Amino acid sequence: MTRTEPAGTPLGDQFHLYDTTLRDGAQREGISYSVADKLAVARLLDELGVGFIEGGWPGALPKDTEFFARAAAGELVLEHAVLVAFGSTRRAGVAAADDPQVRALLDSRAAVVTLVAKSDLRHIERALRVDVAEACAMVEDTVSFLVGEGRRVFLDAEHFFDGYAHDPDAALRVLDAAGRGGADVVVLCDTNGGALPLGLAETVREVAERTGLRLGIHCQDDTSCAVANSVAAVQAGATHVQCTANGYGERAGNADLFAVTGNLVTKLGLDVLPTGGAAELARVSHALAEIANIAPDTHQAYVGASAFAHKAGLHASAIKVDPLLYNHIDPASVGNDMRVLVTEMAGKASLELKGRELGVDLAGRPGALAGAVRKVKTLEAGGWSFEAADASLELLLRREVAEADDTSPGEPPFTLESYRVVLDHRGDGEVIAEATVKVHVGGERVIATAEGNGPVNALDGALREALVPHLSWLDSVELTDYKVRILTDHAGTDAVTRVLVGSTDGEREWTTVGVHENIVEASWLALCDALVHKSLRQ
Amino acid sequence: MTRTEPAGTPLGDQFHLYDTTLRDGAQREGISYSVADKLAVARLLDELGVGFIEGGWPGALPKDTEFFARAAAGELVLEHAVLVAFGSTRRAGVAAADDPQVRALLDSRAAVVTLVAKSDLRHIERALRVDVAEACAMVEDTVSFLVGEGRRVFLDAEHFFDGYAHDPDAALRVLDAAGRGGADVVVLCDTNGGALPLGLAETVREVAERTGLRLGIHCQDDTSCAVANSVAAVQAGATHVQCTANGYGERAGNADLFAVTGNLVTKLGLDVLPTGGAAELARVSHALAEIANIAPDTHQAYVGASAFAHKAGLHASAIKVDPLLYNHIDPASVGNDMRVLVTEMAGKASLELKGRELGVDLAGRPGALAGAVRKVKTLEAGGWSFEAADASLELLLRREVAEADDTSPGEPPFTLESYRVVLDHRGDGEVIAEATVKVHVGGERVIATAEGNGPVNALDGALREALVPHLSWLDSVELTDYKVRILTDHAGTDAVTRVLVGSTDGEREWTTVGVHENIVEASWLALCDALVHKSLRQ
Repeated sequence: MTRTEPAGTPLGDQFHLYDTTLRDGAQREGISYSVADKLAVARLLDELGVGFIEGGWPGALPKDTEFFARAAAGELVLEHAVLVAFGSTRRAGVAAADDPQVRALLDSRAAVVTLVAKSDLRHIERALRVDVAEACAMVEDTVSFLVGEGRRVFLDAEHFFDGYAHDPDAALRVLDAAGRGGADVVVLCDTNGGALPLGLAETVREVAERTGLRLGIHCQDDTSCAVANSVAAVQAGATHVQCTANGYGERAGNADLFAVTGNLVTKLGLDVLPTGGAAELARVSHALAEIANIAPDTHQAYVGASAFAHKAGLHASAIKVDPLLYNHIDPASVGNDMRVLVTEMAGKASLELKGRELGVDLAGRPGALAGAVRKVKTLEAGGWSFEAADASLELLLRREVAEADDTSPGEPPFTLESYRVVLDHRGDGEVIAEATVKVHVGGERVIATAEGNGPVNALDGALREALVPHLSWLDSVELTDYKVRILTDHAGTDAVTRVLVGSTDGEREWTTVGVHENIVEASWLALCDALVHKSLRQ
Repeated sequence: MTRTEPAGTPLGDQFHLYDTTLRDGAQREGISYSVADKLAVARLLDELGVGFIEGGWPGALPKDTEFFARAAAGELVLEHAVLVAFGSTRRAGVAAADDPQVRALLDSRAAVVTLVAKSDLRHIERALRVDVAEACAMVEDTVSFLVGEGRRVFLDAEHFFDGYAHDPDAALRVLDAAGRGGADVVVLCDTNGGALPLGLAETVREVAERTGLRLGIHCQDDTSCAVANSVAAVQAGATHVQCTANGYGERAGNADLFAVTGNLVTKLGLDVLPTGGAAELARVSHALAEIANIAPDTHQAYVGASAFAHKAGLHASAIKVDPLLYNHIDPASVGNDMRVLVTEMAGKASLELKGRELGVDLAGRPGALAGAVRKVKTLEAGGWSFEAADASLELLLRREVAEADDTSPGEPPFTLESYRVVLDHRGDGEVIAEATVKVHVGGERVIATAEGNGPVNALDGALREALVPHLSWLDSVELTDYKVRILTDHAGTDAVTRVLVGSTDGEREWTTVGVHENIVEASWLALCDALVHKSLRQ
């Protein structure tokens, strides 16, 4: 049997930081990840440095089956984390080897499998409709079959805390069955989310003593205690914690990966992330919110834009002199900033660092750096966000450097004179979009028209029509992603729109951003940035 | 001395549910209460049945001074709660009676005063710049002066947990000084919000033993544990809990009144609200969010719209039989509802359950039910999603019932002949959106044109222009929310767009959905559903 330890985490196999954003997190109302989204989420979680990434339920959901297939085919290369497939134990009265759902777990080629099993007598009897002996056999058989096939197996004991309160013996028998089958960790799940930390910690301590098994914890947030419960369980002896990014999950959600990790690292001193990982918490949190298309919670512990924001009142000067007296930790340690004015990327230091990453040297250019900070702050106050749009940020930084050096940022590959988009819902029910652009390129004025299945598609078509004869490299650029976020809560359609456009030339991928009250103009801005960015690499 | 016990709470003075939304909650970025807002907030909190309402800092903030004056003049009549004024102890080297800030507390005519005092040696020395003896004298003098004037006094010991960890003796001396002065409760404050529940509970137990004083708790949410910490403190002996509505507060916020109360009532069995109070939690939470002008957190524990929402799928039939196996409490006990989300995996059981919730009886209509399931599945395969769009789902179900019964679903209030939207980015850089609709309404053909700041805004404007003269009820309908989701894997702008539109008529709110490859057409479909849905309620 192969041991599949999380390779890049400092505590190695001693402590498991286990993420289930892609499975349990996707249960949140409104989240619907595409396979491409799932791959992007997994890459970000791996960059952060979690030990395990639960990718989904292969065999049960076609999208998840495809995700594992594409991951195994080489689309997902993980540095720190191990990919985990989630699934159910065998059905009653069927051999594990003959259960197609169990086979699908093997077919996923994931090295680790997390099985879910009922551990509350009432669920066993009323939902599963078997007795405890058969429930235990289902667990032991399936675990030992998968272990025999070379998989590492964790067991999620569903409804464990309610079950243990109701009938401790039945609940413990299920855990023991998993242990006998060869499961490495049994995960105590507060599936209905009703637990409080003092009682939960006591149960974890008791179960550790009575079973001698390695314990994990999985908490839902129905009492608003999921983070506290997860941390209390670790203090009580659990060495495996299941979380989701930003607490996404069904009902009130799950334990928030970022708050749990922040607490483990800064409060318990547990080295659960690779060097530099903690300082990525804020960035990764916001990037994952973008992919989920959910506005980041500005008041989220550790990573929220307001988490270290102080209203400048009586204590302003005291805070300036002695910031640590007014913050529970150094905000930089989790990649956040103390701030009075809220911006996503305040601070010269972080922008300088980001510039270096993007190949724009701002170190010896205080004028350009100050200008860039001012510009970013102004734009972000108007709804722009560069966290997920490196390519647009790079263009902005280059323009600031050119301005400070009093040089030209380089001729833009084309300039716009005007565009017009017409959308017709005709009397016969057909819907038509048509765009005309007038641009100047290669010393000529070009007019081109294209139809599309929507306003942005038509505009993109017309722009290509006009430019490709002059800029042949443009032909390799494809749009791969298009995201729209309406900013503001109380304005209906009368609001600012932020558009993110993902592009590729077959080798690189880059993302650009546009913001405008008119969605088509916002899209136009992001489209133009995408092409200008490509022209820099010509 | 008058005892000012919270009159209407079942536990009387034995347990204090203390709200500080109007003072500490107002520290949240973006909240700015008018005096009228503050009066409305206090009335709602009193309806819920909290014991104490901290109204603000009279003398320090003019709005708060006015609030107390208007409350005392009869604008605020409280049935359950006692109003509390918040303020600071006397300045160093000044008699309490001569300190204008202390006098302002008396002038507020509040029967209860909560004084804030530093209890962390580092803050005493570095921010206050006095020694511990003077800090204690400031506390004792001010408390005893106010008690002598007939006020009941609570003491907020700021930065207590950090201070106690740093220098327990200094921290305890401040508490003792308050006790000697005659304070009824000393409130241990986790001002920087860095505490975790197991350690905090231990400290509370220790301090109770060492001082013999009545203890309160005040937690900030910087570790995402404010609710857990507050409840753990109560389990450790605190009998006074300070919270804010929806956890509003500085940085990551405060302990959420609704989650704390939900936990105290349903988990600890503490009778902290008058009869019927708990069932008002959801309503009061949402009303207070409205006043704060902050969108309610749909995933908030106990009171969020999604707090008891299940993606039904496989377990729909089990949930139907035994809902309490899948909810940690009965949702109705906190004024909330279980909701079944119609998702990709919709089956007959969940759709029938959902129909009942929406007032469409599908129980005795197998034909309509089967038709609806087929329809929902087909639409969802095409990118539609009804889980957040009850109003569109209700229309769909009604059409299926009408079809199965061979009746008409009712005349639609209007029909579309055609529309045209023109978007111009002109040579001078200005961006213009203009829409023209041709509709049939009330037996007439109407053509109307409107400009807007984007295509959908213009279309919405033109449609209203055309319809309002014929359908006057339309005038009350407002769009409150507009969400766009691009559904795509690798298709860029060449993808399907899903639009959700939120509407209100001032009384009800409803959400509709539209899906089309053209974003404007998708928005049109959702807009039309919103108006048709309103017409059913005419």
